[in-house]
Amino acid sequence: MLTLSKKAQAMPASPIRKLVPFADAAKKRGIKVYHLNIGQPDIESPKEALDAVKNNNLKVVAYAKSGGNDSLREGLARYYKGIGIDEEAADINITNGGSEALQIALSVTCDPDDEVIVFEPFYTNYNSFALQNDVKLVPITTHIEDGFALPPMSEVEKHITPKTKGVVICNPGNPTGCLYTKEALLELGEIAKKYGLFIYADEVYREFCYTDAPHFSCMHIPGLEQNVILLDSVSKRYSLCGARIGYLVSRNKEVMAAVMRYAQARLCSPSYGQIAAEGALDAPKSYFKAVRDEYIHRRDVLIDGLQKMKGVIAPRPMGAFYAAAQLPVDDAETFAKWLLEEFNYNGETVMVAPMAGFYATKGLGKNQIRLAYVLKEEDLRHALVCLEKALEAYPGRTE
Amino acid sequence: MLTLSKKAQAMPASPIRKLVPFADAAKKRGIKVYHLNIGQPDIESPKEALDAVKNNNLKVVAYAKSGGNDSLREGLARYYKGIGIDEEAADINITNGGSEALQIALSVTCDPDDEVIVFEPFYTNYNSFALQNDVKLVPITTHIEDGFALPPMSEVEKHITPKTKGVVICNPGNPTGCLYTKEALLELGEIAKKYGLFIYADEVYREFCYTDAPHFSCMHIPGLEQNVILLDSVSKRYSLCGARIGYLVSRNKEVMAAVMRYAQARLCSPSYGQIAAEGALDAPKSYFKAVRDEYIHRRDVLIDGLQKMKGVIAPRPMGAFYAAAQLPVDDAETFAKWLLEEFNYNGETVMVAPMAGFYATKGLGKNQIRLAYVLKEEDLRHALVCLEKALEAYPGRTE
Repeated sequence: MLTLSKKAQAMPASPIRKLVPFADAAKKRGIKVYHLNIGQPDIESPKEALDAVKNNNLKVVAYAKSGGNDSLREGLARYYKGIGIDEEAADINITNGGSEALQIALSVTCDPDDEVIVFEPFYTNYNSFALQNDVKLVPITTHIEDGFALPPMSEVEKHITPKTKGVVICNPGNPTGCLYTKEALLELGEIAKKYGLFIYADEVYREFCYTDAPHFSCMHIPGLEQNVILLDSVSKRYSLCGARIGYLVSRNKEVMAAVMRYAQARLCSPSYGQIAAEGALDAPKSYFKAVRDEYIHRRDVLIDGLQKMKGVIAPRPMGAFYAAAQLPVDDAETFAKWLLEEFNYNGETVMVAPMAGFYATKGLGKNQIRLAYVLKEEDLRHALVCLEKALEAYPGRTE
Repeated sequence: MLTLSKKAQAMPASPIRKLVPFADAAKKRGIKVYHLNIGQPDIESPKEALDAVKNNNLKVVAYAKSGGNDSLREGLARYYKGIGIDEEAADINITNGGSEALQIALSVTCDPDDEVIVFEPFYTNYNSFALQNDVKLVPITTHIEDGFALPPMSEVEKHITPKTKGVVICNPGNPTGCLYTKEALLELGEIAKKYGLFIYADEVYREFCYTDAPHFSCMHIPGLEQNVILLDSVSKRYSLCGARIGYLVSRNKEVMAAVMRYAQARLCSPSYGQIAAEGALDAPKSYFKAVRDEYIHRRDVLIDGLQKMKGVIAPRPMGAFYAAAQLPVDDAETFAKWLLEEFNYNGETVMVAPMAGFYATKGLGKNQIRLAYVLKEEDLRHALVCLEKALEAYPGRTE
């Protein structure tokens, strides 16, 4: 029978991308749409990365090594040493973006029906990767009122069962922008040791921290070498989303040997992307400083604007380039669609990501949106005006 | 518990790549190793592809669309129309190499424990993709004596059960180089219709056919539009293995909608690779003619050489760039390892792929090797001398 698998039927469409047809239609009607819906920065990739690709001398675009180019892995090992993470090249496997790193990490460690704890709201594609691997995500809710901080560990322990294989921790967080404290992460590390859990540490936004303290990585937690599987990527750090270069890092040799067997099955990660990533490692510190300063400024423009709007709750995030906001609306998805289908202010509107899809618990996040502050100040200010006017005009306003 | 999943434990190491450390050690001892073990052509990628990347003007290497760049998909649709396959861009989803195309195809169509028929010997990574998707591969053996032709359809029908979801067909075949006849494929199409089976058509070697007839694609089988899922790639066709650009093509709209949901979960395929692939579509017909002529010549050099060796059976393949050979040895894997560890002829040796790993049925292929004729004539001739001398000297020779 030519039927789809149960997984394929259950696989969700991207809650972010499903509004795209409405945005396209709006554009066809001549409306300018400000895209705050997706984490695609407008920041230029480092010149070193772009030039490395433009000046490449490949004549035969051959398979790379399954684990990745040695020179890239060695460069990344140096990068990690520079931030106090003592990794060798052998502990690093290059993947097709951070996405594949998590997919492989789950498949390598979880049997069907195993449970993985995740703090909601969380990056929606975790759902897809869990589904593909028959893993049950067990959500623990965090709250906009306290900036989505980690809950007390007693709350985490309540969710641990004999089926629990690990905890996914995204720090700084997507979609919340929340930066977890060192203290909370050390406590989580204790729990991981006590129960023998893997920590799947998604740290792709590591370079985007807006406190003065350096980022505290799960790799920094003492005695957790066998537990932590780090999922990382050049996508956000160097504005190289399309290069599709991520990496899975662990000091657990058994895990890394299995990861290599998975990597061999799909042959290798993209050659040109690896060249770009290796070039990016040469980007000067000033590149990050400029990017970081820009994001701090944008964040403040966005949050200041949101906090002035009546009925809007928007904590100031300390990491990544996302902000979660609670709106005085009946349903954020209806509102987001309405913004594209029915609203415009001086021929402009804004596209946002409704947050219900970022929660596993049904009914949560219904009046929340995620905003990616990936546009330059002027555009952000226009987008904020649209949002404010829209909230005034929206028929489903609740207060 | 920090244990690996059952899948990770079962995931095989690449039978081709597991000899690599021995080859590396041989090189360290100063031995020149001719690599006939892996399908990495030495053929230059088309200038149009290389130049497209070198001349790209990306400033922000942004996410591509999840289904692939429109211009690439439209270009591919034109390519297919040119070979009598009437596809629209919407029927084409760009993937991370042909590998991801098959992974997604299996996940989208098969539930755990579903069965997929495959003709052995087959591309070893099918095992890995089946394992990742809990799919049971049901092998039907083909034989070196008749050049690995498809068996009678009565034999195929015997292997169909209520669990059978489809048939993988690799044409031209890896590792056999076998080109299936139009008649055999039409018969297989009848079976697929009769039992409602998917045909997973791996045609990445389509351009490498050495008869005078054009390649007959499973997409050419009338009335099979809902059944066929074509798995394709620029890797071999344009010697762009490292670009990691494949594509999944089907007229089954339900399948394509599900594939898009999977594609969204992992965001997109590599931007630079897509630029290379689109550039490659502009390669002139003369590029293929030159490549094809070169491979026919190499094949003949290889097969003529093999057929002269006492005790060696090596049918002349009509497609791809692989040849299977049966050797008068006790165990081809032991022999292949011995070639790298203990043998050299004038400081040279050859690396081959033992074929046992290409069979699902235990015990088969034990005295067979796969040779990829991806080296230029002079190197091939040196490799043949090594192989002949090695067979004379090998202590485990059987006749």
